[in-house]
Amino acid sequence: MSEAVQTGQPAVLFDLDGTLVDSVYQHVLAWREALEHEGIDLSVWRIHRRIGMSGGLFLRALDREVGIQITAEQAERLQQIHGEGVRRRLDQIRPLPGARELLRRLSDGGVPWAIATSGRAETAHPIIRLLEVPEGTVVITRDEVPFAKPNPDLFLAAAGRLRRNPRDCFVVGDSVWDMLAARRASALGIGLLSGGYGREELTAAGTYRVYDDPADLLAHLDELGIRT
Amino acid sequence: MSEAVQTGQPAVLFDLDGTLVDSVYQHVLAWREALEHEGIDLSVWRIHRRIGMSGGLFLRALDREVGIQITAEQAERLQQIHGEGVRRRLDQIRPLPGARELLRRLSDGGVPWAIATSGRAETAHPIIRLLEVPEGTVVITRDEVPFAKPNPDLFLAAAGRLRRNPRDCFVVGDSVWDMLAARRASALGIGLLSGGYGREELTAAGTYRVYDDPADLLAHLDELGIRT
Repeated sequence: MSEAVQTGQPAVLFDLDGTLVDSVYQHVLAWREALEHEGIDLSVWRIHRRIGMSGGLFLRALDREVGIQITAEQAERLQQIHGEGVRRRLDQIRPLPGARELLRRLSDGGVPWAIATSGRAETAHPIIRLLEVPEGTVVITRDEVPFAKPNPDLFLAAAGRLRRNPRDCFVVGDSVWDMLAARRASALGIGLLSGGYGREELTAAGTYRVYDDPADLLAHLDELGIRT
Repeated sequence: MSEAVQTGQPAVLFDLDGTLVDSVYQHVLAWREALEHEGIDLSVWRIHRRIGMSGGLFLRALDREVGIQITAEQAERLQQIHGEGVRRRLDQIRPLPGARELLRRLSDGGVPWAIATSGRAETAHPIIRLLEVPEGTVVITRDEVPFAKPNPDLFLAAAGRLRRNPRDCFVVGDSVWDMLAARRASALGIGLLSGGYGREELTAAGTYRVYDDPADLLAHLDELGIRT
């Protein structure tokens, strides 16, 4: 990254689910459905707290938390059923308040931004379409990097595509997995409550600032030194 | 309450949804459905953070948070649709891990316990049946008190029915509304993560101890000085 262009204007790397789009609960229910299909009974809150992390790591955590061992074959099937479950619920998913306006304001103000999600392309792209993003928007999905969040790969790739040093980027996310990935990428993490995590939990994960949702972030861009 | 019987063995007052039963997300979706029916678009996380509080207060908070004013008539209709939505999802609702075992252990050990919920009787009772509680279990629902949580009425009524001073009771709940109600009732609050709130948020609300779910509480009853 040492050759990346540096400027005074920070870039913004967005998580997708729970950050720009009100889709966390649909992911939760789709996971629950997939797990039940495999005869695994897992409390809903435990699923919720894993949303946004790599699906593979989520399934590995099952082993520790509830003593359930998943075979590689079963893991693939679970991820398939989860993806189908999310796509089946697309009509229930809405952009979060202010999301479209925030992205438009950044574009109009010349602030580079990108979307980086632990989701696979086939699930993420239909969700991103709800945001009516312009042609050529930089989107990094799980398929394009070796490791999803909380590893930093997605944000590093997004910064690279924007030709920015990750140190000159804000990462905006709703989960502690975004915040760990941001820290590892040397970016400043901005937390949104709109994925269902509490302010204290995001702060404890090293979030620099916490806002309610994209509308609240849009109203406070000055606090981040973002001039539009 | 000054005439209440005092003993060395504390009593336990349980919240229901998210505390004994994995039903918070069904409540969330039922509220979302009800609000959409009235043309109100509210982010799912904002609904989640109100679960467990009085339905009337929830609707009042809408006015402040999203500038939506609800008429008394509309409020009644919303609560109706919400109740129907929860009952329609009963087959998706499961007891939380360890809930039945915990209640049985308390009963077997001679520890008085009760359930106190902000829900109405017609919604709460079918959910409580999933717990297979014994005949004569003390259950206080919203219909029996002037104010639901975060007011202390439900827990005060439950303690009264157990003939305990609320100071000799633990309140076990998953939400900050339970914890405020516990504080106002002068009971010690025990938080469970199983409703989806984070540890830090429950702690900040004055929770004395936080456990994962009923199974985790059952495994740590000694830490509360409960001898069974």
